[in-house]
Amino acid sequence: MPAIDSLTNHQVRLAARPVGLPTRANWDFTTEAVPEPTSGGVLVRTLFLSLDPAMRGWMNDAKSYIAPVGVGEVMRAGGIGVVVASKNPAFAAGDTVSAGLGVQEYCLIPEAELKRNGIFKIDPRLGSLTQWLNVLGMPGMTGYFGLMDVGQPKAGDTVVVSGAAGAVGQTVGQLAKIHGCRAVGIAGGPAKCEWVVNELGFDACIDYKSGSVRDGLKAHCPNGVDIYFDNVGGDILDHVLARINRKARIIICGAISQYNNTAPVQGPKNYLSLLVNRARMEGIVVFDYADRYPVAVAEMAAYLKDGRMKSKEDVAYGMDTFPEALLKLFNGENFGKLVLQVAD
Amino acid sequence: MPAIDSLTNHQVRLAARPVGLPTRANWDFTTEAVPEPTSGGVLVRTLFLSLDPAMRGWMNDAKSYIAPVGVGEVMRAGGIGVVVASKNPAFAAGDTVSAGLGVQEYCLIPEAELKRNGIFKIDPRLGSLTQWLNVLGMPGMTGYFGLMDVGQPKAGDTVVVSGAAGAVGQTVGQLAKIHGCRAVGIAGGPAKCEWVVNELGFDACIDYKSGSVRDGLKAHCPNGVDIYFDNVGGDILDHVLARINRKARIIICGAISQYNNTAPVQGPKNYLSLLVNRARMEGIVVFDYADRYPVAVAEMAAYLKDGRMKSKEDVAYGMDTFPEALLKLFNGENFGKLVLQVAD
Repeated sequence: MPAIDSLTNHQVRLAARPVGLPTRANWDFTTEAVPEPTSGGVLVRTLFLSLDPAMRGWMNDAKSYIAPVGVGEVMRAGGIGVVVASKNPAFAAGDTVSAGLGVQEYCLIPEAELKRNGIFKIDPRLGSLTQWLNVLGMPGMTGYFGLMDVGQPKAGDTVVVSGAAGAVGQTVGQLAKIHGCRAVGIAGGPAKCEWVVNELGFDACIDYKSGSVRDGLKAHCPNGVDIYFDNVGGDILDHVLARINRKARIIICGAISQYNNTAPVQGPKNYLSLLVNRARMEGIVVFDYADRYPVAVAEMAAYLKDGRMKSKEDVAYGMDTFPEALLKLFNGENFGKLVLQVAD
Repeated sequence: MPAIDSLTNHQVRLAARPVGLPTRANWDFTTEAVPEPTSGGVLVRTLFLSLDPAMRGWMNDAKSYIAPVGVGEVMRAGGIGVVVASKNPAFAAGDTVSAGLGVQEYCLIPEAELKRNGIFKIDPRLGSLTQWLNVLGMPGMTGYFGLMDVGQPKAGDTVVVSGAAGAVGQTVGQLAKIHGCRAVGIAGGPAKCEWVVNELGFDACIDYKSGSVRDGLKAHCPNGVDIYFDNVGGDILDHVLARINRKARIIICGAISQYNNTAPVQGPKNYLSLLVNRARMEGIVVFDYADRYPVAVAEMAAYLKDGRMKSKEDVAYGMDTFPEALLKLFNGENFGKLVLQVAD
């Protein structure tokens, strides 16, 4: 390891707020010297960054569950890194950590920011570094608490999840199976659908690109839908609403079909199905469950170990590819949890 | 009372399913002889009929929480009547009952239909006959269980209700006040708004006809919205979604703005506010709470008696006026619970 003051930190900053899909023009590539941590602080070298649909929302200047990224700021991103210098007794050089690193090679976290940053040491024995951004990370926790706490699955329920081959979706369907439910995915293209069924063990997967979602739901959910975990919004949400059962639970996790809209968001025109079926639609934000991550991580790690849970990560390489890598989330190109490897 | 076999039963039957607002052409006025009840059955003479927005939905040939009224059938309606002849020990001539009477002067309920009909004796000491169709009847029960069970109000919550001067709305706002909440109504026109505030004791009422609902919510819900009881759908639902608090509860009771649409239902384009705010949107159908009506009726009757609950009924007269009376629900003309008096 060279001396810290000889290092350069390559960063990606938000240059301008996008309208529709972000392009290279929305990003600035900058460099900075890497500072030594001050008393109580930690310096982390980024290994992997998590690329998530939610990032698109953070780029908008709108009230949301978290403040927007400011123009000129380093783009927000969670990641896995290694502590290179620590002036805090809770962390030592060489520790592997999960933290809000941002899209940059080095992240300095002053003592006052540690809690808000959410940095914590990870145990690489429980899963690979990329699994710590997937099943054991934010998407896994989102799937876990969204399904278990908001969805409250019972054995025999039919659970439908969109974005089934994505990071959250793969977790949701496998957890549904573990809890004795029928799991039906919705994904784009035969490769993803086959993987979801043959590798992950979903009962069925509907290819929204090559057929009618409505017919697919009819065929694969003969007893209706008890839980729908929605990552996409748009027409697919309406198709599912048309087939929900009494007391169904719809978990609103995201609406990836709407994030790059330049038109207003498409509201679910079948929302009155909630009335007819005395059903419930409820939003989830994973951060609310932070106190319980350790319990869920332990449970998910056990499933990984005994083979009941599988995971797939889609690894892009190099900070320079960040703008294009991010777009894979929105054009359906990513297959599994999308991560960006920044260093070895 | 003349002999039953000398009586004529005037009825209103569904002649054709409406497109948009129902007109006279959608109804047939028919007459029948009045039959004697068979063993175990009851014959009821109609006094008051309840006219409800839900009736518009029953006229459509669509899957819902209840079967549609068939073309040629007597229009479904709840009402208050007097037993004129009974061959069932549970009912005696002269008993006042609430029952699924239909839009007709006499309703014969065979023994096998008694349970499904929902007929029960009412206690006129607890409230007037029209209050038994209002606060003590289906609308009151809808407001009670929707607010209390689905909404789960806590003292200090801000509760917004649309259709505030209507049958369900007046109950919801007054119950909210009784439970220590801030009650803000949305209604059409100054007369309704003034009544809701000055007579019913709501904290505020927004006149959607004479100003911006958005600005009204901003002014009258300075701490955001914790519970929204929605009777109207459409743009108003979106305006409220834009101002909900964390963990808000939105009770979907109806969508009167959409019932006569010939275009598709307008979905709430701000539904992602559920995600941002970890909020919940849930449908209510009052029939699910039938087992608990007696408890709620006793509670509401006590509020009527001690003056904490007031009620207003809007009485139309004569079966012949049924087609036009019903429309008052959809053009905003009714003021209070709409009932049709069929006989003295």
